[in-house]
Amino acid sequence: MKIILIGASGTLGQAVANELGQRHDIIRVGRSSGDYRVDITDSTSIRKLFEQVGGFDALISTAGKVHFGALSEMGEAEMAVGLKDKLMGQVNLVLIGSQYANDGASFTLTTGILSEQPIVLGSSASLVNGAVEGFVRSAALELPRGQRINAVSPNVLVESMEGYAPFFRGFKPVPAANAALGFARSVEGKQSGQVYKIW
Amino acid sequence: MKIILIGASGTLGQAVANELGQRHDIIRVGRSSGDYRVDITDSTSIRKLFEQVGGFDALISTAGKVHFGALSEMGEAEMAVGLKDKLMGQVNLVLIGSQYANDGASFTLTTGILSEQPIVLGSSASLVNGAVEGFVRSAALELPRGQRINAVSPNVLVESMEGYAPFFRGFKPVPAANAALGFARSVEGKQSGQVYKIW
Repeated sequence: MKIILIGASGTLGQAVANELGQRHDIIRVGRSSGDYRVDITDSTSIRKLFEQVGGFDALISTAGKVHFGALSEMGEAEMAVGLKDKLMGQVNLVLIGSQYANDGASFTLTTGILSEQPIVLGSSASLVNGAVEGFVRSAALELPRGQRINAVSPNVLVESMEGYAPFFRGFKPVPAANAALGFARSVEGKQSGQVYKIW
Repeated sequence: MKIILIGASGTLGQAVANELGQRHDIIRVGRSSGDYRVDITDSTSIRKLFEQVGGFDALISTAGKVHFGALSEMGEAEMAVGLKDKLMGQVNLVLIGSQYANDGASFTLTTGILSEQPIVLGSSASLVNGAVEGFVRSAALELPRGQRINAVSPNVLVESMEGYAPFFRGFKPVPAANAALGFARSVEGKQSGQVYKIW
């Protein structure tokens, strides 16, 4: 399969490339590195990416920023970061990418445990992850030409604990390699509208 | 209790007023009718509402628009309707309202069954409802001074079936009066971070 991997240079992206690169062609895409570049907050940049890459069998997004901060300091500007990046960035990869994707292609987006298991400072992440999961369930009903869509919701990653541990006390982190298996299930399986929880 | 009801003139809002008005003071608020007016897509309008109303013990929102349409015709403009109105409108009622709310006040937002049980044409509604539910779970951890927050997720309403029936085939509609009970549980109970499903 020809797989477009957005966020390829990140911790999770690298693990996904290791897992799926054993059996498929991975096109690595990032904001500032990779085979191609994309700014997922910009529809024009997304469209240009698909024009360059052409047809594909799977798109995986392990990209998306949100703002972490106290609820009392959350305003429209802070919320807009995640709405524009991790939420609408990933949604636009599907809405636009569907037009370029091959018949039967799959889309796999990334959410995270905070949609269901919140932490202090994570209100935007919880909001955005919940939104992406709602979108995935619904878009699965309407994607054309046998295309599929799923999300992978990882727990905090072992590899990220150095920076994140104080915010995730009591959470049992998972290795990025385990999270990568969720992407393999989505891409190489046949389900659609699922959220694969790697908890 | 002094309860601010946003969306008071709608089908659901009226049912909530009937239920909670038996025991509490209801301040009816709407876009174009009610004791006070508010445009929930405008932070300035929201802040003005709270300046006018003063302290309160509960805020209920049964307001919020989303765009219904085919996934293939969903673009940023169509998605922006729900992001600005039902999502950030309700979120801003909490972020701003929390500063004006009394100690121990509750916030109750409205989502809907589509976050979990999607329908064709409903991708924006599923996205927005999922987002509001994620926000509610997370904001519950950080609201100050004993304030609480919950969501009510109704099925399609019996009273709305005349227009909506073709889109909700096989769904068992619930009377608005049943959905109103979810708001009573939130306001008059003590839980926080819950999504009360009226299905």
